[in-house]
Amino acid sequence: MKIVILGAVAAGAKAAAKAKRLLPDAVIDIYTDDTHVSYSACGLPYYIQGNFEDYRTLLVRSPEEFEASGIHVHLKNKAIKIVPETKQVLIQSLEENRAFLVDYDKLVIATGARPIIPSISNVNLRNVFTVRKIEDGISIRECALKSKHATIIGSGYIGLELLEAFTELGLKVTLVEYSPVIAPMFDEDISQIISQQLKSISDGRFEIVTSELVTEFFSNDKGEIIGVKTGTGKEFSTDMAVICTGVLPNVEIAREAGIAIGETGAIKVNKHMQTNIENIYACGDCAEKTLLINNSKVWVPLGSTANKEGRVAAMHLAGFDEDFDGILASAVVRCLSLTMSMTGLTVKKANLAGFNPISAKVTKYDKVGYMPDVNNITLKLVADKTTGLLLGAQAVGSGDADKRINALTAALLGRLTIEQFTKNDLTYAPPFAPTIDPLLNAAQILLKIYEEGL
Amino acid sequence: MKIVILGAVAAGAKAAAKAKRLLPDAVIDIYTDDTHVSYSACGLPYYIQGNFEDYRTLLVRSPEEFEASGIHVHLKNKAIKIVPETKQVLIQSLEENRAFLVDYDKLVIATGARPIIPSISNVNLRNVFTVRKIEDGISIRECALKSKHATIIGSGYIGLELLEAFTELGLKVTLVEYSPVIAPMFDEDISQIISQQLKSISDGRFEIVTSELVTEFFSNDKGEIIGVKTGTGKEFSTDMAVICTGVLPNVEIAREAGIAIGETGAIKVNKHMQTNIENIYACGDCAEKTLLINNSKVWVPLGSTANKEGRVAAMHLAGFDEDFDGILASAVVRCLSLTMSMTGLTVKKANLAGFNPISAKVTKYDKVGYMPDVNNITLKLVADKTTGLLLGAQAVGSGDADKRINALTAALLGRLTIEQFTKNDLTYAPPFAPTIDPLLNAAQILLKIYEEGL
Repeated sequence: MKIVILGAVAAGAKAAAKAKRLLPDAVIDIYTDDTHVSYSACGLPYYIQGNFEDYRTLLVRSPEEFEASGIHVHLKNKAIKIVPETKQVLIQSLEENRAFLVDYDKLVIATGARPIIPSISNVNLRNVFTVRKIEDGISIRECALKSKHATIIGSGYIGLELLEAFTELGLKVTLVEYSPVIAPMFDEDISQIISQQLKSISDGRFEIVTSELVTEFFSNDKGEIIGVKTGTGKEFSTDMAVICTGVLPNVEIAREAGIAIGETGAIKVNKHMQTNIENIYACGDCAEKTLLINNSKVWVPLGSTANKEGRVAAMHLAGFDEDFDGILASAVVRCLSLTMSMTGLTVKKANLAGFNPISAKVTKYDKVGYMPDVNNITLKLVADKTTGLLLGAQAVGSGDADKRINALTAALLGRLTIEQFTKNDLTYAPPFAPTIDPLLNAAQILLKIYEEGL
Repeated sequence: MKIVILGAVAAGAKAAAKAKRLLPDAVIDIYTDDTHVSYSACGLPYYIQGNFEDYRTLLVRSPEEFEASGIHVHLKNKAIKIVPETKQVLIQSLEENRAFLVDYDKLVIATGARPIIPSISNVNLRNVFTVRKIEDGISIRECALKSKHATIIGSGYIGLELLEAFTELGLKVTLVEYSPVIAPMFDEDISQIISQQLKSISDGRFEIVTSELVTEFFSNDKGEIIGVKTGTGKEFSTDMAVICTGVLPNVEIAREAGIAIGETGAIKVNKHMQTNIENIYACGDCAEKTLLINNSKVWVPLGSTANKEGRVAAMHLAGFDEDFDGILASAVVRCLSLTMSMTGLTVKKANLAGFNPISAKVTKYDKVGYMPDVNNITLKLVADKTTGLLLGAQAVGSGDADKRINALTAALLGRLTIEQFTKNDLTYAPPFAPTIDPLLNAAQILLKIYEEGL
């Protein structure tokens, strides 16, 4: 069997390795326009920060390791056309400037996603970056080490991780966000708390600018960025800029081949990661996901999901009946001493999804008040007014914010009601939680709101 | 309405406060042989350790605060007989050496638990302690500050917390455990890992002795302990000893009044915390609990449960139809850099409960390997071979061990199967978890074991 895999950061790399284990005799070829395969892109902010010296730490499996296990890796080879009729892919070598056709019995599309580049004048200056590939990380770190000021555009997960990285490196940072609040993936009240808490720990190290669109970059005569201009005419100097305004799935090659694209803009797949065309799978950031809460289609690109999908695609193409049912849209991000985490639907998204959401928010200690490292944690629980079913949660605070979100994912998975969840027996000891966990405080309040609304 | 509450550390104090809020006109009297009410007994190891200076930090509500809210607190007044026929309690004043009868409309028994004292020669020497009340904490801290060596007898939660406290205070410690392994509430394989890990961080600061029974204490002519002898004839010097060999529920006064005692030895209660005798409730450490996993009766005395039960007892006696369904036996303990946590049934207890348990154990990084503070975590998941239902989990490792256990409690609450749990979407970012969480690794392995056993 000939297995061709397009792209191999997380999903593609996992699919290749798993397929080889299941089908030792299969011929497996990975084609990618990238210069690396099988790496932790999520680790780039920590490499930039200097948590480890060598970027190769981010590599999970090297091309040599793949080759040793019998998987052929073709770096700098971009897939430019899929021909399902003849079960072939047209590959273009980026180094040799030639194109060639390869045959497949099973094709796995794992082309990932690419950064969205907003319309900014002079966006292509030197020292203006996006964060996606190993080279991006190397260039950003190199540049940061000789810079005094960095500009981050966008305050999603990557923007916040880079805010930590640059601050830890001693740079002054300006974070510019178009929305009125930062971290707009959270409900606005939670985003506001994130803003306040970040500002309270800034200590002059960074500035957060909201409701501002970056419209122009200024350069010196070397073509390097030296300044930023915003839509309201604000101007400031900077030594580097990183654009973190989101990503788009790489679906063009799939669309052109007649592979169905979902309503989210990512490739439509079933539970086995099969596309609508026989023998073609898609997985990872280029593929659409199902939100387990209401079986709606969503697109939440994450390395953890990509791994699971790659595994399922490989198992299914090898003849095992494995499913990937979907996600809960769980996520977490750390920015300095602040942890922000969420799972399921926010109130905002629950409304869009047609629910009638109710919510409760508490701010409480994360452990017993007399413990030396006690911190505040803000928790927001969301449920459906009609059914009482839990829909999601958001948390902001110390590291223990993440613990509370993970305590809720199984409740979403099991479709628990808020009433059932109030019966939860979380662990208790003074270094870990107050006698009544903030999660149960929030659940009690939400239950009361639910019961009053009946 | 006259409400009498016997005992008021956690459950009784919560019941009193909640009842007063619901029934402002009720006359509420607390009787206790203790010298304090409403305190965090769980915080004693942290007071002993010196995490805070003033023991009054442990007090949640002072007697004066209770009085100000209209609740009468009678310290050093021991209930010695309940007379359900006349709805009276005979109280003995410990200071004035007189007894008197008080009337009740509703009686709440929250008499807690007391330490088990093993049969040791000269057990009543000076500087030999148990840990239960505020005075115990004060005396132990006082003694520890002038001691060089401490002996801890028993390696349950309190024993392990004191091992941390004494070690942090700079004492040399000998921990003596009768079982072949320490932390015998865990399965033996997990206990062995706990032993190894504790020994590996001991650095000469403490010694762990297992399979040894302490048989005798030696004293100087001031009646102070100076040495310990074990059943195998081992002898060593010490300046103090703390007996942490477990607790027993205080049920004698209830039993004598004809209140039913359960198979666990604690007071039998229904979901409203009612005993078999009308108008008499029991809650907290003296009351039996229901294990939600199989509705069996268990006795797991914990401050967090006591609080919930006190609340439910108060609500029900005030006319609200509130339930306390039961517990999952979730628990966590920290000992220096080690966190040990569990929920539900161990393999040992699952066998005793009539299940046919299967289990999977993994040792993995708790976050991505390149993060600077990465640690190993060992996770053991238990499920039922026949139904695939999850039964419990145990975790040992860094602080993030606790996060994984809390991620499982809602799954036990919702009676999820191991197969359902493998679909869980836990949060992922490099500082918080590997791309595939150890919990999902363990779940995958356990699912395979389950499927192979079908």
